[in-house]
Amino acid sequence: MADQVLPSWNDGPVRSAILDFVARVTKEGGPDFVPPSERIATFDNDGTLWCEQPLQNQFFFAFDRLEALAAKDPSLRERQPFKAFLERDLATIHALGKQAAFELAFSTHAGMTADEFAGIAKEWFASARHLKLGIPYAQCIYRPQIELLSFLRANGFKTFIVSGGGIDLIRAFAEENYGIPPEQVIGSSVKLRFETSGGQVDLMRLSELNSFDDREVKPANIALHIGRRPILAFGNSDGDLAMLRYMLAGKGAQLALLLHHDDAEREFAYDREFRLSPLIEALDKADEYGITLVSMKEAWKTVFPNAPATAAENRTSS
Amino acid sequence: MADQVLPSWNDGPVRSAILDFVARVTKEGGPDFVPPSERIATFDNDGTLWCEQPLQNQFFFAFDRLEALAAKDPSLRERQPFKAFLERDLATIHALGKQAAFELAFSTHAGMTADEFAGIAKEWFASARHLKLGIPYAQCIYRPQIELLSFLRANGFKTFIVSGGGIDLIRAFAEENYGIPPEQVIGSSVKLRFETSGGQVDLMRLSELNSFDDREVKPANIALHIGRRPILAFGNSDGDLAMLRYMLAGKGAQLALLLHHDDAEREFAYDREFRLSPLIEALDKADEYGITLVSMKEAWKTVFPNAPATAAENRTSS
Repeated sequence: MADQVLPSWNDGPVRSAILDFVARVTKEGGPDFVPPSERIATFDNDGTLWCEQPLQNQFFFAFDRLEALAAKDPSLRERQPFKAFLERDLATIHALGKQAAFELAFSTHAGMTADEFAGIAKEWFASARHLKLGIPYAQCIYRPQIELLSFLRANGFKTFIVSGGGIDLIRAFAEENYGIPPEQVIGSSVKLRFETSGGQVDLMRLSELNSFDDREVKPANIALHIGRRPILAFGNSDGDLAMLRYMLAGKGAQLALLLHHDDAEREFAYDREFRLSPLIEALDKADEYGITLVSMKEAWKTVFPNAPATAAENRTSS
Repeated sequence: MADQVLPSWNDGPVRSAILDFVARVTKEGGPDFVPPSERIATFDNDGTLWCEQPLQNQFFFAFDRLEALAAKDPSLRERQPFKAFLERDLATIHALGKQAAFELAFSTHAGMTADEFAGIAKEWFASARHLKLGIPYAQCIYRPQIELLSFLRANGFKTFIVSGGGIDLIRAFAEENYGIPPEQVIGSSVKLRFETSGGQVDLMRLSELNSFDDREVKPANIALHIGRRPILAFGNSDGDLAMLRYMLAGKGAQLALLLHHDDAEREFAYDREFRLSPLIEALDKADEYGITLVSMKEAWKTVFPNAPATAAENRTSS
């Protein structure tokens, strides 16, 4: 039975902690039972559900959009920070800082309707390839996390994404690839303006930021969108620490998980030095706060969906 | 079969339009079929799911909070606009205008944590009585709407509230009374601040408004929270018109409904003159925009949950 679930997770303390937690909160009459309506699980996206190296995919989406804009206005190629974006100058982009870099990326899609944006995002995902891995983004998601999301939902959990990435870009991808519907995606957002002109009714995307869903903003947006404290939260950087601590300040059974990218061979190895989402404080304080570290190298049998099937999977699929 | 659903709705064009719409969007292979994940229904709350006369319940909640504050600081009794709130001076409150009046109501709960607020709201609902009807708020909800919400959910719809009222006050009530979980409630909100002091981690309610979820803001908040255009929307005032028009600008089968309070005998009769949510433009333009008017007097067999059971109900419960 136990080896039929989470087949891409290695036996070990992390997989056991997950199985134990889910068993406890779903055991009716048990001391840790949580009713299904309160089984809320929140996951960061970039670096937690899929690759964020060498840069979050939001930027590659913006690069392609800027190419189209620069074709009409070549002066963009000479003006910073557009120049850095157009030249994929990662060092200059990193130096902007996370919020400024993301804001610039979001602003490249201002002035179109929400529907137009959704169409462009879906098209982009259909053709874009990861810069280093050379595979479609749908192949850059982590197989163990897809299994975990499914396992949680099969146990009555509602799974949410809480990401610093743009809410509508994630929504163009999340339902098909993570099984997470748009209304369960929380992310950074720009302001939208309701417009009625010439009989047309539309929501227009503005360049002004509505919310940058990182760090201390994540718990506030969880309260705004979900209105209920999660009992499981999974992140991978200091940007997720407030979300994890907010969850841990609640009552009852809880599981706080933090993915450590220590697997240069199968994915990437980084933590303190990655400027757009460093893992410093959360790594230092994990023990003190009660956060379970998940070493990618140790915890995951396979990383990506198209990796060769493992023996365990062959066994369970027969 | 047909008379087992929506038993508190009178046979007639509105009930038929609802039954026909639901039949069409759920008919697999039919021209109007909508997959379950896209069956989004949005309902205004005050005046659409329950009584908003003589004043939205948000204000009575604020009155009681202000009494507690005035007990500590009696000078509030002499200062406007607090004086008007403390004296239930509805004319002065109406004159403030909707957003200013609501903002003041929201501000009375600043400086407490999100959890403290949720506790106070639940307690208040347990004891508060409607000013004119003298019954608990749980008895001021409209029976036909509860049936409609259930009927939609039984047909694969996800039901959302999109209200100008405070999001967290509605959440304290909606799951138990409407069957709508917190994550499917959208409303006006104040900013929240994540605080860590003395080892305590908390979300603090500020007095600053985050979003006043009325009129043109409703479609923007639907896009932010749901990320998908509804196919059914139900409102009762000009504050809901942008939401209805946004929905109607979508493609495929749609049903836009507008409750008209024309039933002084069983509830209240008002439209153009109710300053905090007037029904003027939406009434004048309903036909032009393709909005179905729902006359409370004609469409509803019973209004409140504790009204005597109808013959139809007795038939279906046997």
